[in-house]
Amino acid sequence: MLGRCIGTHRVRQIKRSIRHGKITLLCLFMTVVVLRGTIGAGKFGTPEQDFNDLRDHLYAARKHGDPHRVLTESNQSNNNKNDEASNANDANSYATFDINKILVHEGVDEKPDPNRPYSLGPKISDWNQQREKWLSANPSLGNFIKPNKPRVLLVTGSSPKPCENPVGDHYLLKSIKNKIDYCRLHGIEIFYNMALLDAEMAGFWAKLPLIRKLLLSHPEVEFLWWMDSDAMFTDMAFEVPWERYKDSNFVMHGWNEMVYDEKNWIGLNTGSFLLRNCQWSLDLLDTWSPMGPKGKIRDEAGKVLTRELKNRPVFEADDQSAMVYLLATQRDKWGDKVYLENAYYLHGYWGILVDRYEEMIENYHPGLGDHRWPLVTHFVGCKPCGKFGDYSVERCLKQMDRAFNFGDNQILQIYGFTHKSLSSRRVRRVRNETTNPLEVKDEFGLLHPAFKAVKVSTTS
Amino acid sequence: MLGRCIGTHRVRQIKRSIRHGKITLLCLFMTVVVLRGTIGAGKFGTPEQDFNDLRDHLYAARKHGDPHRVLTESNQSNNNKNDEASNANDANSYATFDINKILVHEGVDEKPDPNRPYSLGPKISDWNQQREKWLSANPSLGNFIKPNKPRVLLVTGSSPKPCENPVGDHYLLKSIKNKIDYCRLHGIEIFYNMALLDAEMAGFWAKLPLIRKLLLSHPEVEFLWWMDSDAMFTDMAFEVPWERYKDSNFVMHGWNEMVYDEKNWIGLNTGSFLLRNCQWSLDLLDTWSPMGPKGKIRDEAGKVLTRELKNRPVFEADDQSAMVYLLATQRDKWGDKVYLENAYYLHGYWGILVDRYEEMIENYHPGLGDHRWPLVTHFVGCKPCGKFGDYSVERCLKQMDRAFNFGDNQILQIYGFTHKSLSSRRVRRVRNETTNPLEVKDEFGLLHPAFKAVKVSTTS
Repeated sequence: MLGRCIGTHRVRQIKRSIRHGKITLLCLFMTVVVLRGTIGAGKFGTPEQDFNDLRDHLYAARKHGDPHRVLTESNQSNNNKNDEASNANDANSYATFDINKILVHEGVDEKPDPNRPYSLGPKISDWNQQREKWLSANPSLGNFIKPNKPRVLLVTGSSPKPCENPVGDHYLLKSIKNKIDYCRLHGIEIFYNMALLDAEMAGFWAKLPLIRKLLLSHPEVEFLWWMDSDAMFTDMAFEVPWERYKDSNFVMHGWNEMVYDEKNWIGLNTGSFLLRNCQWSLDLLDTWSPMGPKGKIRDEAGKVLTRELKNRPVFEADDQSAMVYLLATQRDKWGDKVYLENAYYLHGYWGILVDRYEEMIENYHPGLGDHRWPLVTHFVGCKPCGKFGDYSVERCLKQMDRAFNFGDNQILQIYGFTHKSLSSRRVRRVRNETTNPLEVKDEFGLLHPAFKAVKVSTTS
Repeated sequence: MLGRCIGTHRVRQIKRSIRHGKITLLCLFMTVVVLRGTIGAGKFGTPEQDFNDLRDHLYAARKHGDPHRVLTESNQSNNNKNDEASNANDANSYATFDINKILVHEGVDEKPDPNRPYSLGPKISDWNQQREKWLSANPSLGNFIKPNKPRVLLVTGSSPKPCENPVGDHYLLKSIKNKIDYCRLHGIEIFYNMALLDAEMAGFWAKLPLIRKLLLSHPEVEFLWWMDSDAMFTDMAFEVPWERYKDSNFVMHGWNEMVYDEKNWIGLNTGSFLLRNCQWSLDLLDTWSPMGPKGKIRDEAGKVLTRELKNRPVFEADDQSAMVYLLATQRDKWGDKVYLENAYYLHGYWGILVDRYEEMIENYHPGLGDHRWPLVTHFVGCKPCGKFGDYSVERCLKQMDRAFNFGDNQILQIYGFTHKSLSSRRVRRVRNETTNPLEVKDEFGLLHPAFKAVKVSTTS
């Protein structure tokens, strides 16, 4: 009896165990399958791995010194021989001074020689002469395409690694498609960077070594246009008023009062700016860069910036705060060649623009570039590629789609199409096709914009 | 006794159930979490939804007729009035004949009027005259940048939706970065398409309506270069031998014997080709397109192609097979203006190239474009963006990284860097920086390639 009762129960238990086991195995299987899909082919590191990679890389560079460091030392002597180099050291003083204070005060262990602040490369003092010589020797690659139309290189980029948030890469793709369109219409070339040229300058600061390298490699380029990967062109018809900047070397969206009087850390934006290819710009980069090196220097410099600038949150030193601080503390040295533009949106903060696109379409037209039809909508703080943005990812992605479609409609109308709505990927026809396509005039004259036309020689 | 034995057993059973339940719930939780990550912010459809969207879209277009269809009808009369149009109908005969046979034989219900085969748009017969007139009226937008250097527009694109395989978008990003680099060096403009202009022509066939639209919108473009999103430039120095094609209108990688004698479906490749902007090309597109409409027509045409072509697997009609069939059946009509190139890799099949990159680096140099250093490496069948490729995704992604880095090393060396290995995203310095950057000569003369230089007018 006992045996029977145990027997029957054991049978029921075994059946139950098998039932539960089946569900458990099914779930495990699903998890494995889906995980596999998520991590892709398993060749890309998890965020943790990536972080460790970077940390190791940085540590190695510090410990053993990378070619860049060696180089800097090897050129130290030349610099000292060079009279003009001393000016550069002055130019660096705003940063070196603070950093030395920091290093002494905080007693940083893993530090570079305080007498030798971080350098982007060997000091060059005769760039204007070098470039002038090259330009006269290469007339076929003029730095002006037409009078008042400088040769411009738009520089942007993103991490060599896939985004931590998988959908982020799709938005990087849309963002570069958007830039390709604007640049094709306006005769601007594009350099898309995916390489980390200097591990010390990772993050916000990576643009500085890249920009210096490109200025020195492309004397034919008159203006370099830096644009963050999270900024999109929303006015495809607006041409930058180049002649307005004929006496300026550095153009950012911003306000003099906010930068020079308030020292407000958002008095200007470094997500979209124009930098002239000249000696002044190389000196500016040298002066701008010393707060960049990752680790103690960047962390401690961040404390100085948060203390000295208005409304700045507590975080490591960023290139934008450093620029506000640089201009506010050395206006006499740099101010006269810096143009803080606010007559149109060279950079436009998405928060105040994206909900007004329908109103703009209702009342205005492309080509204005300002609050009526912004040249650029910049998704500051969205970080669609990273995991942690300041805003909810959903809102950011939804609004990035709207910004992309708002700009893309101006491209599609050239060909007789438009998005079904600002939130739709689908397109519909807005013009019937004709047997005389060349008689069609597109609404905003973007098909063959006059400002793009360049007389080319038909002689070899 | 029985009660006791049952009681103790029930307790054990409940404990077991809870144990199993815990594991089951944990698994379910993990699955949900990971699935959420995979599908993104929940704003993008699952593959099933996407498929239904497309199906509904197609059905609607068929049932109610889209603006395109209306347009085609409205222009039918003009065509009949037009003498030259009759030639076009002849040109269509290869396809209309088969499709009519199919429609009659298979008794397709959801079919277009067999007397009116699918049309890309209203028949245009005087394009050469229209374009000539426009070009003489717009000398500043010449169709030749220099003698023997035509104005070229490279056209590529990808789906407006994020990839089903999340890592796919990262490879689309690398692929367009790679094209931006080659095109900047060679003075070629880029059009990146993300819109489905004609739902009926989704998939392989989407390029046809797009190409026609671009030819008619850009008379200044002499050659349109179509390139699939899964093809990458691996020789950044190779300039297309344009003068070789002065008497040709359509250039593809391929072999005459395989196409005209064998009717082999891989006798040519339509993943990378050059098409001249002229009347001949419009007629070719009209003749090429009728097998494209999704659904019964494409499915049934696929059976014809599999039956008529050598080694073709069973699947719906694709643009490549249709082109082989068109040329093989109408060589006299088209052959003299088609150039099947195999002296270099205008398209290069990845399977025979990617494992030889190290050997190429060892023995050869960029600029050759052929088996020694292929111009293009095309990842046929990889479909990194879709879920189902012919090859294991792991192998494809690994090799796409190698191809990208192989090409990217030629760009990086311009600036004094290189990838640490063909499989590494990291870069290292290969040249010390100098204070005379303009005296540096990059290894392959890509910094300021002569073939890019264009004399620009300095008069307004």
